[in-house]
Amino acid sequence: MESVSFPPLSRVAVCGGTHGNEMTGVYMVRHLQKEKIDKIGSVSVSTVLTNPRAVEICRRYVETDLNRCFTEALLNSPVTDSSPYELRRAQELNAQIGPKGSKEAMDLIIDIHNTTSNMGLCFIFYSIDWFTLHILKYLQSKMASVEVRAIQLDIPIAEAYSLESVGKHGFAIEAGPQPNGVVRADIHNMVKEAVDHIFSWLQEFNSGSTFEGGEVEAYTLVKSIDYPRNPVTGEITAAIHSQLQDNDFKLLQRGNPIFMSFSGETVKYDGEDLYPFFVNECAYYEKKIAFHLARKIKLTLPPIKVTG
Amino acid sequence: MESVSFPPLSRVAVCGGTHGNEMTGVYMVRHLQKEKIDKIGSVSVSTVLTNPRAVEICRRYVETDLNRCFTEALLNSPVTDSSPYELRRAQELNAQIGPKGSKEAMDLIIDIHNTTSNMGLCFIFYSIDWFTLHILKYLQSKMASVEVRAIQLDIPIAEAYSLESVGKHGFAIEAGPQPNGVVRADIHNMVKEAVDHIFSWLQEFNSGSTFEGGEVEAYTLVKSIDYPRNPVTGEITAAIHSQLQDNDFKLLQRGNPIFMSFSGETVKYDGEDLYPFFVNECAYYEKKIAFHLARKIKLTLPPIKVTG
Repeated sequence: MESVSFPPLSRVAVCGGTHGNEMTGVYMVRHLQKEKIDKIGSVSVSTVLTNPRAVEICRRYVETDLNRCFTEALLNSPVTDSSPYELRRAQELNAQIGPKGSKEAMDLIIDIHNTTSNMGLCFIFYSIDWFTLHILKYLQSKMASVEVRAIQLDIPIAEAYSLESVGKHGFAIEAGPQPNGVVRADIHNMVKEAVDHIFSWLQEFNSGSTFEGGEVEAYTLVKSIDYPRNPVTGEITAAIHSQLQDNDFKLLQRGNPIFMSFSGETVKYDGEDLYPFFVNECAYYEKKIAFHLARKIKLTLPPIKVTG
Repeated sequence: MESVSFPPLSRVAVCGGTHGNEMTGVYMVRHLQKEKIDKIGSVSVSTVLTNPRAVEICRRYVETDLNRCFTEALLNSPVTDSSPYELRRAQELNAQIGPKGSKEAMDLIIDIHNTTSNMGLCFIFYSIDWFTLHILKYLQSKMASVEVRAIQLDIPIAEAYSLESVGKHGFAIEAGPQPNGVVRADIHNMVKEAVDHIFSWLQEFNSGSTFEGGEVEAYTLVKSIDYPRNPVTGEITAAIHSQLQDNDFKLLQRGNPIFMSFSGETVKYDGEDLYPFFVNECAYYEKKIAFHLARKIKLTLPPIKVTG
């Protein structure tokens, strides 16, 4: 493939606390702010604690999930003092690090999340973006002890609902497993190492290095599976089966156990072979999702370099 | 030691949801209630979802920690509609499965908790109680794949603050690691197996078997250690070190790493050799406890049997 040129990525936002009980991003942003780090080499860095009220009470959100508020429709809807806090905050953030779709928007937004699922280090991104995929490929080559994966959500940018969609480029980092409200050093170190490598990549890119093309793997969402529930009360009647628990990204095949009911019965999978992820994610109980299922795809990248 | 006789244990309460986001007890109680299980052999069983409002919103508590409300002083304090919900609920529970210190109280109360710490299956009890220790010894002999441990809190029964202190006998079961708001099949199965064995023990005891005396180990609390904090803001500035994380009940010695600051510095332990537990328990961030330290003790049990 022919090489593609892009302007430098000189304004980057590192965000945490979009979900107030996902502590890796919260502590990373607080530490960067305490150290007054606002420039790394050629890159100016904005650090943003995105949902401070949710962080204060250590909950995912106060009134509504902030990370579903960044669609163009919601960002442009009229708000009053009685609008949900997170909707107002989304518009503030859009003014601060966007506006979404404008030339004033940050060149790159990285939003740090945690999951109770065993997803290791995982990028989540919307449309295919050479920067995200080149950074992914770079991390895969640099972080030998961690399998770095990526999930592509096939949603048009106007409907993209999460914070990183406000930037010219952007992705979320999911890191787990980590309980809500807890900070684990292993997860913290993994994310810190990833962020350090991302800034190294940005320096190399901005200073004129060419990054060779190639192939990367990604996962695309096919469908979501809910827990078995009591049809009257709606209460869940089964847990994720031990053979599926902690096995995110391991191929799920017809006949594999997926749930174990509280009375001891096993529920088996009955569908096409797919890859589970967000297995037993805490916040998805209320969204009626026990796990997602994905297809694995290969993406071919062109070489990229900065415009000369 | 000479054998000791006790009346049968015929009225037992199995409780869950004292902390509304600790899901093993919640789902176990709901399942027993759905199956209408109110008698197991010679034992009448009460199943109690103890903090239903906290369960509904999936939080530890609504207004105050229910599991600190069962001191004699709080149980006997006047309450009004404006008293904290959990204080009123504690008095309701005391009427239902107590009253504490009375002959009407349940013979045995088992309260099921979860922790984000890697504590496996752990009993927590107050004063030395032959029933608790015999049941502990029995579980240790029956559950080969799990190390069953016990923590003794050295608190007089009048000042004992947690639900199980309302029964004639009682203990909490702590099971982990499990994130708040999540149910894991491995933890659920471990606790279910323990509860099944406890009811087997009760059948054997009530039917006249003699349980031989012997020795059991327990841990007694020595002190608690807080996270390093920013002296101005109070925010924590370090995570539990990876070498301590998940190593509950492994001897901590002078010079072992205990914290890793977010800027990468290691903090080492500087005290007498003790056993850490509740390492990185989510709910203890607000209580300013990073982990507890315990001393290991040996307790000698007499043989016990039912009064003839």
